[in-house]
Amino acid sequence: MQAAAMLVIGDEILSGRTRDANVSRLGMRLGEIGVSLAEVRIVPDIHRRIAEAAKELAAEYDCVFTSGGIGPTHDDITAEAIAMAFGADLEINPEARAILQRRCDETGAELNEARLRMARVPKGGELIENPVSGAPGFRVGNVYVMAGIPEVFEAMLESALPGLSGGDPILSRTLTVMRPEGEIAEPLGKIAASRPELSFGSYPFARDGRFGSNIVMRGTDGKQLETACAELQKALGQA
Amino acid sequence: MQAAAMLVIGDEILSGRTRDANVSRLGMRLGEIGVSLAEVRIVPDIHRRIAEAAKELAAEYDCVFTSGGIGPTHDDITAEAIAMAFGADLEINPEARAILQRRCDETGAELNEARLRMARVPKGGELIENPVSGAPGFRVGNVYVMAGIPEVFEAMLESALPGLSGGDPILSRTLTVMRPEGEIAEPLGKIAASRPELSFGSYPFARDGRFGSNIVMRGTDGKQLETACAELQKALGQA
Repeated sequence: MQAAAMLVIGDEILSGRTRDANVSRLGMRLGEIGVSLAEVRIVPDIHRRIAEAAKELAAEYDCVFTSGGIGPTHDDITAEAIAMAFGADLEINPEARAILQRRCDETGAELNEARLRMARVPKGGELIENPVSGAPGFRVGNVYVMAGIPEVFEAMLESALPGLSGGDPILSRTLTVMRPEGEIAEPLGKIAASRPELSFGSYPFARDGRFGSNIVMRGTDGKQLETACAELQKALGQA
Repeated sequence: MQAAAMLVIGDEILSGRTRDANVSRLGMRLGEIGVSLAEVRIVPDIHRRIAEAAKELAAEYDCVFTSGGIGPTHDDITAEAIAMAFGADLEINPEARAILQRRCDETGAELNEARLRMARVPKGGELIENPVSGAPGFRVGNVYVMAGIPEVFEAMLESALPGLSGGDPILSRTLTVMRPEGEIAEPLGKIAASRPELSFGSYPFARDGRFGSNIVMRGTDGKQLETACAELQKALGQA
């Protein structure tokens, strides 16, 4: 199965001011096309930190998605950092410039120096369409550089996904049991050990003063999942 | 300023099923005591991945906070992974065992093998109190191992924070401007460049079909922040 990583460029996330929404969106959509999100890193808006993390993740995983730092202001430095990471020149991409020009013509805004920053793409990069706000993302090698605003991230992701070759979708089944984890751990552990082709996670919760557990089973074979779920229901006296 | 990292043990976060809530809580609380959250990694529930990331982050940062994977089920492997990372023996901590026993006595539950897993602490580790659900976290060196459930993470964090020596609190001021980033980028960039002791971030938003920008200024000197904010208001014609 292909494995992906995500790099969040995120002073705002690290400071706690903003809660990230893109990790869960990416994880879910990748799972649907059979790619597993295997690591996420959140780093500050610092050139060296972005470049080093991008380089490490690009070498380790089949593909990398970045979010954030591609707007027009001084703190938007992702394009520079990615160019630095891959030793590529950062240039004004004519296609991106034309998109921005069209957008400006439509809205009556001026394509000033700041806005033109959003047309900078490392040499050899391919654009990722942004139907929401125009300014495109780009792909360099196996790194997909996308916006941080959730609506735009989501739209760019939908533009990028068809280019990815995944595998069988990762399916999941959740069994909710109104018993605390400490009581179901033993039978659950046994069944999990007997079915190494599936993954079993247990997540406790409290509801109306009672403890329960959500058992999440994952795998690519729907029939195996159903069988495991039935086994578990029986073992936990839920059938 | 001290720098911290966070390690999220997170199959559920990576799959997109659950949206993390602990990063923002940690970032905010650390900022208040003058510690900057400088990196976050989210890794799957795999021993080697947890151990390697913990080791790397512990070497690079003043302190590391982990979340998740310390419950009673087979997929809770954080304590083992942390012991592996630091070459420490994993043993039943008598104090933790006593806490769990008391809790079981109160609730009428049995302190079975699964629940006893939650008393395992790498040798030399110190407990982190969990006033919410009993089962404690622990600290090994500069690594604070805490639960993933937000209510419990938060409670453990409050138990751990008094032991951390931070610096001056990181203050912030936000200026909201109903102009698109592309128009304010130039004056904003100039002021940011002239005040290297503060950090300036710009975050666009759309509201009622109009574009605006939140400019977030951060620093430890309240007076400097006020002056910068006034400068910016004047430069952007908001005064």
